[in-house]
Amino acid sequence: MSTVVHKYGGTSMGSIEKIKSVARKLISEKEKGNDVVVVVSAMGKTTNKLVELTKEISNNPDKREFDMLLSIGEQISISLLAIAIKSYGYDAISFTGYQAGIKTKGMHTKSNIVDIDIDKIRKNLGQGKIVIIAGFQGVNENGDITTLGRGGSDTTAVALAAKLGCDCTIYTDVEGIYPVDPKLYPNAKKLDYIGYKEMIEMSKLGAGVMETTSVEIGYKNNVSIYVASSSKDTKGTYITEKQNCGDNKSIFGIAINDNTSIFTIKNVLLKSNDMSLISGILSDENLSIKVINQISSKGDYTDFSLVISKGDLGCIDEAINKIKSKLAHIDISKDLDVTTISVVGGGINNNNIIANILEILKNNDIKFKKIITSELSISFIVDINDKAKIIELLGNEFNL
Amino acid sequence: MSTVVHKYGGTSMGSIEKIKSVARKLISEKEKGNDVVVVVSAMGKTTNKLVELTKEISNNPDKREFDMLLSIGEQISISLLAIAIKSYGYDAISFTGYQAGIKTKGMHTKSNIVDIDIDKIRKNLGQGKIVIIAGFQGVNENGDITTLGRGGSDTTAVALAAKLGCDCTIYTDVEGIYPVDPKLYPNAKKLDYIGYKEMIEMSKLGAGVMETTSVEIGYKNNVSIYVASSSKDTKGTYITEKQNCGDNKSIFGIAINDNTSIFTIKNVLLKSNDMSLISGILSDENLSIKVINQISSKGDYTDFSLVISKGDLGCIDEAINKIKSKLAHIDISKDLDVTTISVVGGGINNNNIIANILEILKNNDIKFKKIITSELSISFIVDINDKAKIIELLGNEFNL
Repeated sequence: MSTVVHKYGGTSMGSIEKIKSVARKLISEKEKGNDVVVVVSAMGKTTNKLVELTKEISNNPDKREFDMLLSIGEQISISLLAIAIKSYGYDAISFTGYQAGIKTKGMHTKSNIVDIDIDKIRKNLGQGKIVIIAGFQGVNENGDITTLGRGGSDTTAVALAAKLGCDCTIYTDVEGIYPVDPKLYPNAKKLDYIGYKEMIEMSKLGAGVMETTSVEIGYKNNVSIYVASSSKDTKGTYITEKQNCGDNKSIFGIAINDNTSIFTIKNVLLKSNDMSLISGILSDENLSIKVINQISSKGDYTDFSLVISKGDLGCIDEAINKIKSKLAHIDISKDLDVTTISVVGGGINNNNIIANILEILKNNDIKFKKIITSELSISFIVDINDKAKIIELLGNEFNL
Repeated sequence: MSTVVHKYGGTSMGSIEKIKSVARKLISEKEKGNDVVVVVSAMGKTTNKLVELTKEISNNPDKREFDMLLSIGEQISISLLAIAIKSYGYDAISFTGYQAGIKTKGMHTKSNIVDIDIDKIRKNLGQGKIVIIAGFQGVNENGDITTLGRGGSDTTAVALAAKLGCDCTIYTDVEGIYPVDPKLYPNAKKLDYIGYKEMIEMSKLGAGVMETTSVEIGYKNNVSIYVASSSKDTKGTYITEKQNCGDNKSIFGIAINDNTSIFTIKNVLLKSNDMSLISGILSDENLSIKVINQISSKGDYTDFSLVISKGDLGCIDEAINKIKSKLAHIDISKDLDVTTISVVGGGINNNNIIANILEILKNNDIKFKKIITSELSISFIVDINDKAKIIELLGNEFNL
């Protein structure tokens, strides 16, 4: 008998029928003789609906209260799943984040798990119950409900597996990890394995299946993470120490991040506090600066270009209006029709590969707006209209 | 400066606009220099929607898990209200039942408040915050979320006022307490005052404005409860020790309870455990027996008539099917087209008043199916089609 942690996401919990189906899968896992812990997300679009509701009151809601609100989504899921399992005659119990002893630190809406008091979980497993935990949430040192940010339920699942010393299976609406999103590149070949580091880099750059934090926790605690379809009985992908497929090809994926925009800000007075005021306003509006480039300079005035990504509540127009009203001498414009395409791989930053990609873009008459490089990736910010073409070209070139 | 406890119900919190309006009212109360505690219910039909969702899984959901589910309704309300108050530039903080230290005992879905640890509330009031508490919920000795049953948010508000030693105002969608529901008897005259005992009797018999438990807590702790409209600026009704309007008229109201049905069960074998089996099934289906009458007897077999009321999840047909399948010799029929009309007053059970009412019914050719009396009331179970006529006749007769 071993302990397993399974996680079902919002799509897999999207309707009563789907919740019943998850209940039956967990029962069959229990019937195999395993101690079953399951982490679930909010049903389908619940969280988005709550975000929309909040926007009717404020574009910048108090974050403690926003966490209080968002956490109800998972609470609905856990109770309905427990009711379903019990209606089939099996024992189950649901716990919110605080009931499960999930202790967090840090800012509201993006807190980090610092510890999990697993006594209650162990005790209930010992009583033969399927233990259902609300993903995405915890409680901080003040007793306030916190949330873990995007992908938070995966984080809960992997952290629980780390603490319980067992493997973690993430059931999701895709069949595993692909080097490129198969919705964007239908030829993409599913991976059997991917290394933690590679997965982390892919996640950071926008590959949607797993968020960075959960994979990092898996990496640190050596938790084997298996990503598989919640609806199909196909082979998924293991995220482990192993390299993907055993071969050593340097380029292993393409990540796309549409949550990209470019601000051009002209006439910034360098000697003033213009830039700190601007970055303060952007942060208040939940916009985060990814890159700042100085593009030209004239006397005391300088022009900047900023790559910005926005969170759930980010409001670009609001930010621009605030900046304009506080700094009348500034000229500010936005470009939202852009995306970031990142090529990820080991040793990618040798000139051959960059040159190779630039050659491909040039031959196909595609212009880039910016290039950003890191140890494991090269990111191109390009016109959104060129996205599909670039993905196809690079997918074919690197045989992904 | 004094502390006040206000309570806003589901209708008053039914939309974002209404929540903003409640926020402004609380701010104006705060501006008067008061320490403001507010208890809120779930928005509009949230709870009903959750009940419907659960029915898709089970008609008899696990009650711990059902509480876990139902409690989210208030959690949405408190967080949105806090976000609204803070967006107006005032300080506020929301607490769930367990965060507010509301400790309960008893069965899930109808727990009782046994204590409230008000230190956290006092501390936050001391910091100038409007303190927002989720009504209807608490936490039991196992750390499980509990709910308080129908009217639970009123119970939370009155219990808080008792503990804080202050008055309680219940803002609702009616303008106060009436001797008869004005929707059913438009001539009904709003009361300025009603005594605790009279209000408790009216509530028990189905008068919808206040539930029994909250008034009982007010009575025990001498909390003055003021019931008023959340939308209109009209005078409401005080529930206190005082008798209504100072006059001593013995009949002070009519309560109507449509949640009434009559079962006729024939051929019950008295020497067997037939009756305990039947009452067990009714209880499993959330149906509660109000009255049992033996109506005839033949050898070892007896016929009974049961007055039944059903809770949120009560399922009459389910119960009948179960009884039939377990006790094939029993003949069972239901009559759902009935209602209970109760005349409430001090010293009501003298023969003059009963005779008076019977005379009125007879003169108007109205038949009753059952009469049940108590110290403060006489209840008639009648055909639902006679309801309006009876209310009009009795309302006029007793000048309500």
